[in-house]
Amino acid sequence: MPFALLLEAPEAPLDLPLAMLLVFGSAKLLGELFERLRQPAIVGEILAGVLIGPGVLGWMQPHEFLVALAELGVMFLLFRVGLEVKSSELLKVGGSATLVAVLGVAIPFFLGWGILQLWGEPQLESIFTGAAMVATSVGITAQVLASKGLLSLEASKVILAAAVIDDILGLLILALVSSLARGGVNVVELASTAVVAIGFTAVVVKWGTRTMKRVVPRVQKRMISGESQFALAMILLFALSYMAAHSGVAAIIGAFLAGMALADTVSHRVHDLAHGVTELLVPFFLVGIGLHLDVSAFSNWSTVAMAAVIFLAAVVSKFVGCGLGAYRMGWRNASRVGVGMIPRGEVGMVVAQIGLSMGVVLPHVYAVVVFMSVATTIAAPPLLRIAYRGAAEEEADATAAAEEDFRLG
Amino acid sequence: MPFALLLEAPEAPLDLPLAMLLVFGSAKLLGELFERLRQPAIVGEILAGVLIGPGVLGWMQPHEFLVALAELGVMFLLFRVGLEVKSSELLKVGGSATLVAVLGVAIPFFLGWGILQLWGEPQLESIFTGAAMVATSVGITAQVLASKGLLSLEASKVILAAAVIDDILGLLILALVSSLARGGVNVVELASTAVVAIGFTAVVVKWGTRTMKRVVPRVQKRMISGESQFALAMILLFALSYMAAHSGVAAIIGAFLAGMALADTVSHRVHDLAHGVTELLVPFFLVGIGLHLDVSAFSNWSTVAMAAVIFLAAVVSKFVGCGLGAYRMGWRNASRVGVGMIPRGEVGMVVAQIGLSMGVVLPHVYAVVVFMSVATTIAAPPLLRIAYRGAAEEEADATAAAEEDFRLG
Repeated sequence: MPFALLLEAPEAPLDLPLAMLLVFGSAKLLGELFERLRQPAIVGEILAGVLIGPGVLGWMQPHEFLVALAELGVMFLLFRVGLEVKSSELLKVGGSATLVAVLGVAIPFFLGWGILQLWGEPQLESIFTGAAMVATSVGITAQVLASKGLLSLEASKVILAAAVIDDILGLLILALVSSLARGGVNVVELASTAVVAIGFTAVVVKWGTRTMKRVVPRVQKRMISGESQFALAMILLFALSYMAAHSGVAAIIGAFLAGMALADTVSHRVHDLAHGVTELLVPFFLVGIGLHLDVSAFSNWSTVAMAAVIFLAAVVSKFVGCGLGAYRMGWRNASRVGVGMIPRGEVGMVVAQIGLSMGVVLPHVYAVVVFMSVATTIAAPPLLRIAYRGAAEEEADATAAAEEDFRLG
Repeated sequence: MPFALLLEAPEAPLDLPLAMLLVFGSAKLLGELFERLRQPAIVGEILAGVLIGPGVLGWMQPHEFLVALAELGVMFLLFRVGLEVKSSELLKVGGSATLVAVLGVAIPFFLGWGILQLWGEPQLESIFTGAAMVATSVGITAQVLASKGLLSLEASKVILAAAVIDDILGLLILALVSSLARGGVNVVELASTAVVAIGFTAVVVKWGTRTMKRVVPRVQKRMISGESQFALAMILLFALSYMAAHSGVAAIIGAFLAGMALADTVSHRVHDLAHGVTELLVPFFLVGIGLHLDVSAFSNWSTVAMAAVIFLAAVVSKFVGCGLGAYRMGWRNASRVGVGMIPRGEVGMVVAQIGLSMGVVLPHVYAVVVFMSVATTIAAPPLLRIAYRGAAEEEADATAAAEEDFRLG
């Protein structure tokens, strides 16, 4: 097999063009196939990862380079989404978003914990599974909404704002359960983690746009290199991703905040250039999610049953929790928010991975959590389609209203 | 040639946003500084790599991910250059280009070998040094010419065509010296290597454009996914890079051929999206070259002297060899071609690395070859500037003539 050269062990040298061809090509092929079947392309791209991954064909392993490209891909994805969102609009929906995030964290956590307790699993493992069910992977929803041009709807903004808060809550829960696993909870440390993460996010949301409006034109006027605005945008993207990661929030939240800070400032040219990078790299993010699913782990019926129950619980608990948080926006919007927060993607896997490496999560529960993460991610796009039915006209109305506001303001 | 051989495999986990920020940010900063000093930005970007690399500040090591991003960057760079070149134009200058490539390979090889022999170094080491002085890294010249819009001049086309032939000759010389080092030359193997490499290149140059003119519109009509032309272009880019690498030529030559095959077909949109990726990744290629220079290796005067002599020999031998090959085009064009072929970049380093890993190249000679590779790469952009002085007007004339041709044809 010509693919023998490829990534059999993590130490094997990478055949770069082959890896790029396999990941990008299979993603586009299955994406096209799914569009023809009137299914979301994004689901096809994730399944391409399952297909070429260790579970089925075994052509590809999760290699360090591919993992890094996937991370870069989701950073660019959220940067691009941020470019289309104004921070003032996000702050406006802050109240609803907080309620959505809190309920959408609490209900999945207790449900996940409760199910594993009923199953007779150990306490710490149950807690880790609950924690893995908490975090929303906003990348998937953002990609679906951005590709359909639905980001300016109110429900979409609530989803994005809630995802940022959800990420901070997820960080705190992960810090809490990790210290529980280590044997003791340091309240001061936990509180300082919270303060740094919330502080960083709040400062960038509040002052980022204003600062960039002043800084970008000034710097650009003085720079003589070509594509200087793009260079500036990239530097802000990487700098805020770095600061976010070191404040405890995810790097992709920093990328989103960087995009948002630049939303009012940068030219269409920067959008186009960043879009090129996103188009190239997003398949690596999607295929990367699929690559982690190893179907061979489901060899006994008890594990299969647990996977099915946890998957259903993950879908229902986020839908109910987040929907409940958004109930004041009406049934239609609440259902959109509920569905939009379902995908767990890479975030749930990271929590399970930490539990596995600490020895408090057993391999079969790890496989269940990975399945839950991938399956919720695959389930979300078709559900989003249903929930957002008829939204294109609302979007047109919303844009018209925004333009009206702009003219009047 | 596998760029991945440059991999030093440090085990430290990668802080992705920080690595991106350091490499991209330092490149843009020093690029801007050099433009202000009226020097080529590209030189600043390479020096940024020397600065943050192990030799000076030590902030950054040549990490596997960065090496792969660099390879991807130079693939996209040559793809973009290919998009602006028609294969028919390249075939037209084939005769001159062959002479340029052959003389530009023979003279540096014998000069490099001769100098090391006079220095009293062993025979095999002298041969490897000669081989490392053979290969031109066309990426640097292509970047300079593309950024100044000078690709359509005749000298530029000769440089690109000669670089393709040079790469094949370099491959054969490397195969020859490697088998010499192993103790015996297999003529049949060498001949079949030559046939495969030349055959692949000839087929793509001759029939690539024609095939794509038929395939792209047809496939695009049937595909329903968004940005389908970009997806197709990327798949061709990775597929031809893969096939090139496995035919023995460099992956970047495949990338160049892919761009050329699509030059007549793809829309401006594909150019823009690919340009975004190039803008992001080219700094990684340039900084990556600089990262490999370890100035601390030059601790004794004999090594410093050898480095200076080898550097001068590398510049003079390519300039004279390639210039001589292009003498029929007049002094001005011959000097452009001669200067354009000077940079050795990553290619020279790969040859030295193979010699090092086979135990036939000693560390001090390895350091000398790396210095020669980096220094010729830094020397080329300012020399190109001088050689191409006044070329902007010729370019305008050439474009006008081409448009005239087009209208008449």
